[in-house]
Amino acid sequence: MATSRSSPFLDPEVIKYMEDFNQLVMKEALQGGTDRKAKVIDFHIPQELEKIMKLDIGSEPETTDKMLEHCKRIIKYSVKTGHPHFYNQLYSGLEPYSLTGTWLTDALNTNIHTYEVAPVFVLIEKYLMEKMSSKIGFPDGEGIFCPGGSFSNLMAVHLARFRKCGPEIANTGLWGMPKMRLYQSDEAHYSLKKAGLFLGIGMDNVIPIATDDKGRVKADALDAQIQKDKAAGYIPLIYMATSGSTVLGCFDDLNAVADVCSKHKVWMHTDAAWGGGVLLSDKYKHLMSGVDRGDSVAWNLHKMANVPVQASAFVVKETGLLQKGNGLNAEYLFQPDKPYDTSYDIGDRSVQCGRRADAVKVWMQWKALGDSGMGERVERAYENADYFTRRLRESEGFRLVLSEFQCTNICFWYIPPCLRGKEETPEWWAKVGKVAPLIKAKMMKEGTMMIGYQPLTPKKFVNFFRIIIHNPLCDFSDMDLTVSEIKRLGDALTAEDF
Amino acid sequence: MATSRSSPFLDPEVIKYMEDFNQLVMKEALQGGTDRKAKVIDFHIPQELEKIMKLDIGSEPETTDKMLEHCKRIIKYSVKTGHPHFYNQLYSGLEPYSLTGTWLTDALNTNIHTYEVAPVFVLIEKYLMEKMSSKIGFPDGEGIFCPGGSFSNLMAVHLARFRKCGPEIANTGLWGMPKMRLYQSDEAHYSLKKAGLFLGIGMDNVIPIATDDKGRVKADALDAQIQKDKAAGYIPLIYMATSGSTVLGCFDDLNAVADVCSKHKVWMHTDAAWGGGVLLSDKYKHLMSGVDRGDSVAWNLHKMANVPVQASAFVVKETGLLQKGNGLNAEYLFQPDKPYDTSYDIGDRSVQCGRRADAVKVWMQWKALGDSGMGERVERAYENADYFTRRLRESEGFRLVLSEFQCTNICFWYIPPCLRGKEETPEWWAKVGKVAPLIKAKMMKEGTMMIGYQPLTPKKFVNFFRIIIHNPLCDFSDMDLTVSEIKRLGDALTAEDF
Repeated sequence: MATSRSSPFLDPEVIKYMEDFNQLVMKEALQGGTDRKAKVIDFHIPQELEKIMKLDIGSEPETTDKMLEHCKRIIKYSVKTGHPHFYNQLYSGLEPYSLTGTWLTDALNTNIHTYEVAPVFVLIEKYLMEKMSSKIGFPDGEGIFCPGGSFSNLMAVHLARFRKCGPEIANTGLWGMPKMRLYQSDEAHYSLKKAGLFLGIGMDNVIPIATDDKGRVKADALDAQIQKDKAAGYIPLIYMATSGSTVLGCFDDLNAVADVCSKHKVWMHTDAAWGGGVLLSDKYKHLMSGVDRGDSVAWNLHKMANVPVQASAFVVKETGLLQKGNGLNAEYLFQPDKPYDTSYDIGDRSVQCGRRADAVKVWMQWKALGDSGMGERVERAYENADYFTRRLRESEGFRLVLSEFQCTNICFWYIPPCLRGKEETPEWWAKVGKVAPLIKAKMMKEGTMMIGYQPLTPKKFVNFFRIIIHNPLCDFSDMDLTVSEIKRLGDALTAEDF
Repeated sequence: MATSRSSPFLDPEVIKYMEDFNQLVMKEALQGGTDRKAKVIDFHIPQELEKIMKLDIGSEPETTDKMLEHCKRIIKYSVKTGHPHFYNQLYSGLEPYSLTGTWLTDALNTNIHTYEVAPVFVLIEKYLMEKMSSKIGFPDGEGIFCPGGSFSNLMAVHLARFRKCGPEIANTGLWGMPKMRLYQSDEAHYSLKKAGLFLGIGMDNVIPIATDDKGRVKADALDAQIQKDKAAGYIPLIYMATSGSTVLGCFDDLNAVADVCSKHKVWMHTDAAWGGGVLLSDKYKHLMSGVDRGDSVAWNLHKMANVPVQASAFVVKETGLLQKGNGLNAEYLFQPDKPYDTSYDIGDRSVQCGRRADAVKVWMQWKALGDSGMGERVERAYENADYFTRRLRESEGFRLVLSEFQCTNICFWYIPPCLRGKEETPEWWAKVGKVAPLIKAKMMKEGTMMIGYQPLTPKKFVNFFRIIIHNPLCDFSDMDLTVSEIKRLGDALTAEDF
């Protein structure tokens, strides 16, 4: 290992290492990781994998050859989330331009807190936020990238509280204030509860509102709950609408929600972490019609846009509110006497001090694909989802959880032959609930495919599969393979398995 | 742009793009970005740079040649934070192994929330947290990487509240609870105020405690304040000790702090975001003696260890508390019926749902350098800081803010010839306060060097330079150059400049 004080990147050993590294990544992580014939996962239980990985760090340096071996092992035993048969999570896909965008961000290693140290990155984030605001329909909107959609949702509650209660609450805290309430549909993400937990509001004050048979919040139930809470002295703070729910993919009717929120002067936040991508497509943006009537939006581009994790945009309608609600003007960072317009020093708009420049990778991909390419990916995913749903309808043993899909996550049960044609008693359903974990465990072991499953206790649904279709590599043949793979593994189950 | 559904990484145009990209980054960002003869910054005001950057995204795709041009422009106009003359921020340096570590993380694109989708990354984070816990002296400690040190400090307050008030507070919130108070020294980071703001406790309840002439908190003043607050009915929740303050680099006497905290059963959190690196060196770890008596530590490895931003470890003494204080067990993610020990599904330990695997880059660098190499870097920085301080003492016009440095950030004024030998009236000090911004603006324009400055209003200090010495490339000749560069630019100032 070089110990001289000249740049390590002039050291022939390091140059060689970096070249070998780039080739290794190209061959094994990128080409290998998107190869239909390769495994999605080479699964080992934690105790086994710990032995394989040689994680222990000693006192002395490691050679570059050894470091390459470590990289090779990290790749081999990591899940290939860019693989066309990885359907397990809301993120998937692997795209050259956003990938090089994030690599570039790391090579230029800076925080997006002042223009002084991140001039280009600040401008890129600003441009993107204007573009995304305009897609949403906030003409003067602004925003920041947050470390994840949960954090964006938390930020929405924080700003809603700030605006409702006035700036004094920043100094005094919640003491002496009337109790506040946060609302979401019973389909919505658990992060609103985490916001209640963190922000001192309490999870008991996060109220789930009933949904209809399409998973949309019942606007009249929301209205009634808010009225009841107002009468009881609560401050109704925020309704977190959902565009693309995590499990079933449901979209709230945002216009109906906006009517209720504006009537009661309640902050309307739209959690479009998953579904936000529809705004990129002229064909599907109607699913979020009414979003422009709200106050803020969480939109994760690492989900429906396949940018590397994380790329979580939080966009607010009211310009300046992020700075007002979060800014402390630390004088060591945000000096007013700089040789440029210091409104470009955006670091004070978050609870974070330093913040990664996630905007760069998003910009790189969007620039490379253009608006048309970004929209086309969303439409391609819907096309695949539509085909897949049709295949499930016509194949024996499959049963859809929702009669129609809305987002490109499709939920379904598989009833293997040994369970078919029986009375559907609670005991029978309990057995059906074991099918997905059994099939999934086999898939993991064989490494052929990854699809998630979960129960949905509020609706009394036992474990069902949730396939997430959003890898732009996927085509109808992949959809066919998925159906046949689940059949193959499920049909091997016998009465003894239950 | 390829539209086929085979892997984009098999497309010859993409392969060529990635090869060209790798070469461009090596030559211009890595070699160019660490080259003493190259500029640290090619500065343009925002309105100019906006015109240069061609950020606008159109409907149609961009060619790969154009994308390479964009990359080239992003590199050219970004600040070279790995440059040996970038002394502006607490992060600096550019290291091949952590850089390839983060590149690898992005290529494998996953969230570190379940073992299922991030088996290797989960094990790496677990291993590193054990190693860091042992450096701190928490035998059963555990932790997670957070999106920045501010967030780690916020997490400490959240856990302190959870442990003090019992799990019921998660459900009920702060309503009806006695007021709580958070303490820090008047030298400490502003993020504790942001925690007060976010968590609903209020910034008025974040109490600064006086420091001595070395910037250490006065333990008896802390003791007195806690006693007074207890008598007034407040719950004293947490003292955030500082190891390496952001501006002056001061270290609290952690043993003295621990005595007070244990006496009053107050959570002791150590904000070692900047100074934590001393734990890597046998020679300097004494500066944090007593840290093991506390409850939690924030330690940013993107600062004193030169890992790319962000690498913010949050370590807690009590095993299981992160899960207890944050866990909601969302059933779509944390299914209990998986084919492995689900205690490895660590995603519920944070307020985030998805989380970047920052551990990987840290592990890569630490593994490559070994414990000895990691410690040596810290010692090298102290050696440079010591030499630099001696040079300031013997050079005319320089005045140190603290008589002795403790961390490797050195604060000083420069009194240019035209201001020397005058009576030190408030008007004179006001002029001295203009020196650093004037010199800094010239540095930015010429692009030769970047050093921060700030006032310190609580201590009535006008603007002074803060140089942060931690790039492992720096040697004594760089220190000499810094002194002469400030002299050169400062000596050109005349009475008309003030």
